Amino acid sequence: MTALSVPSVPADLALARLREATPLVQCITNSVVTGFTANVLLAVGAAPAMVDLPEEAGIFAGIAGGLLVNLGTPTPQQRDAARAAVVATDRWVLDPVAIGTLPVRTALAAELLQSRPAIVRGNASEIIALAGLGSGGRGVDSTAGAEEALEAATSIARSAGAVVAVSGEVDVITDGTETVRVPGGDRLLTLVTGGGCSLGATMAAFLAVCDPLSAAVAASVAHAVAAEHAARTSSGPGTFAVDFLDALAALDPSDLRDREAHLQGVS
Amino acid sequence: MTALSVPSVPADLALARLREATPLVQCITNSVVTGFTANVLLAVGAAPAMVDLPEEAGIFAGIAGGLLVNLGTPTPQQRDAARAAVVATDRWVLDPVAIGTLPVRTALAAELLQSRPAIVRGNASEIIALAGLGSGGRGVDSTAGAEEALEAATSIARSAGAVVAVSGEVDVITDGTETVRVPGGDRLLTLVTGGGCSLGATMAAFLAVCDPLSAAVAASVAHAVAAEHAARTSSGPGTFAVDFLDALAALDPSDLRDREAHLQGVS
Amino acid sequence: MTALSVPSVPADLALARLREATPLVQCITNSVVTGFTANVLLAVGAAPAMVDLPEEAGIFAGIAGGLLVNLGTPTPQQRDAARAAVVATDRWVLDPVAIGTLPVRTALAAELLQSRPAIVRGNASEIIALAGLGSGGRGVDSTAGAEEALEAATSIARSAGAVVAVSGEVDVITDGTETVRVPGGDRLLTLVTGGGCSLGATMAAFLAVCDPLSAAVAASVAHAVAAEHAARTSSGPGTFAVDFLDALAALDPSDLRDREAHLQGVS
Repeated sequence: MTALSVPSVPADLALARLREATPLVQCITNSVVTGFTANVLLAVGAAPAMVDLPEEAGIFAGIAGGLLVNLGTPTPQQRDAARAAVVATDRWVLDPVAIGTLPVRTALAAELLQSRPAIVRGNASEIIALAGLGSGGRGVDSTAGAEEALEAATSIARSAGAVVAVSGEVDVITDGTETVRVPGGDRLLTLVTGGGCSLGATMAAFLAVCDPLSAAVAASVAHAVAAEHAARTSSGPGTFAVDFLDALAALDPSDLRDREAHLQGVS
Repeated sequence: MTALSVPSVPADLALARLREATPLVQCITNSVVTGFTANVLLAVGAAPAMVDLPEEAGIFAGIAGGLLVNLGTPTPQQRDAARAAVVATDRWVLDPVAIGTLPVRTALAAELLQSRPAIVRGNASEIIALAGLGSGGRGVDSTAGAEEALEAATSIARSAGAVVAVSGEVDVITDGTETVRVPGGDRLLTLVTGGGCSLGATMAAFLAVCDPLSAAVAASVAHAVAAEHAARTSSGPGTFAVDFLDALAALDPSDLRDREAHLQGVS
Repeated sequence: MTALSVPSVPADLALARLREATPLVQCITNSVVTGFTANVLLAVGAAPAMVDLPEEAGIFAGIAGGLLVNLGTPTPQQRDAARAAVVATDRWVLDPVAIGTLPVRTALAAELLQSRPAIVRGNASEIIALAGLGSGGRGVDSTAGAEEALEAATSIARSAGAVVAVSGEVDVITDGTETVRVPGGDRLLTLVTGGGCSLGATMAAFLAVCDPLSAAVAASVAHAVAAEHAARTSSGPGTFAVDFLDALAALDPSDLRDREAHLQGVS
């Protein structure tokens, strides 16, 4: 008797599929990280497109392989674009940036959650705030560890039917039943703006080629391994961000296979 | 008897003039590539300014040496800014990003084309869609080769009185009568967001110092040569983007002169 | 008898405090430089957050340690967000980008100046235009040297009760009584988009931990020293921007202490 493996599509296979498919990934994201996010998607093997007009976002979501909705700087147009896009696809990621104290994005995150994202990605403070269990952290800064948000993540996963990924020193990813922990990465990634936001985009890319839990784990593993590679060659946050893109582009599926083995030990 | 040379201002002379003039280049462009585009303009020797408010764009277009209108993320304000700017100058470049399926930008591109851009730059799918001969590609991704868009490019060039530059492995540039092909560059440039968008900006910079055909060719040659230099020193798309800026800034007009000789052989 | 030292908090102590506090810094800034600005703030030791919705900006300004209002691409929403934010905090920096000829930002700068920024930072042309003594330069390009703007800077400092920092080959910083000159830096910083804008953000970060004159000087010294370090390792504007981030992150307070000694000689 063999147990179902968790996740069902291992990260190495997911990456091989992604490279083969080069899926279009639509990003409705904040103005700070657009360029870096697009470069991360290109490096990982996807084709980014930021289509965030209300009149165009729904049309494009129907064509795209995956969609990211990131609430970092949600202009009125982006809010309407997000509403139009999330009803046009099931393959979308919600990143509730800095919700909690700030009213516009907090209300919007609650509203969009009703449209059943495949994945919710955030830091611990954001996930706790989204579950209605806390008031949020300091903007994009999390004041709580990922493990502290496990109860909130599980609650959202069960009520919204989504995979919830909490970013931290160890990423905690749950579908409400199974929980996967992805260790690794590097502290320097927290000194690069868009480190977390681009992870949400990579999850959206993987949604084009596998199920939500597999997609969230594969993206998390890919970013962790690439960050470790970049940390070896860089000498600060500037060179790290650049080398991270090189490392993502150079990732071989086998680099993730070794990490999979480690994952199965901790899940 | 001596034939007129095509283009009339060779790229090396155009670059020398640009460096001397450091023209102001106004960019009404998409939110993904603003930073990279500005850095490309600075590296090539121009002074970028993104002035994209409706109340200011026309005033600034009258002062600037060149103008780029890129339709990547055309907010209502940028659309009005573009309308105000293009009637205030003849030295402008239209980049019809991802037109075809998406209605707002497709209609806007058709409208702006009536105001006679000096240069239209796009990938093959965009140029084919602008000519009304196809439905567009996959967003910024072209699904056709540059050569396949030659008929569409020639048609636009003749009807709109513009130079049309189709980006691809070999760039194809036509004024409707003469066609110039610029080979070279590097595949890594397609893995950097803003690779194509910044080429449109560089064309706008060259418009400040020479005629449209010469400007389009000089920009294309400068980007191709700088990309080749950067490919030699980089180890992936991250370092490539950085080294490309260094290479642009280090370009000597004589680097382009050698390429000119090659061009005349293929034009 | 001991004279008061100018500035009262030396740059090395200010940096040590900043690293200890990791203050939240709110940026209402232009779309070209958001990513680079956020990375500069992370490198220097602060936590950036671009909260620029009218409904959220005032709330966040009350929480943040410092606020930057940069008028580079002031959309109607950002203008309202700025109005809401500047009345919620005293610790804010006004960067009147490209004012003079362009009407929207010029009127807004005059209006916001009434809300008493702690620091005004600009190039000479912008400061002269803000004082009503000239028509502005060429967008972000200054056509005047910093020293030429000293009269204008002193006038604004006295009437608005602000510290005024004029960026140039030598930065000139005055509170209307004392004037500090910060030499150094590197010309390559002028070839990186956001070089000046990010300096305003760093000043906002230092406002969280010291008085305005000390904050402006500490930021100016930190950028100058980091630029000198980056100039040694880089080979053009692309690598310079990257190495500048590494250098900022690697700054030791003692690096600024040596520079303080030099400062006291010229102040």
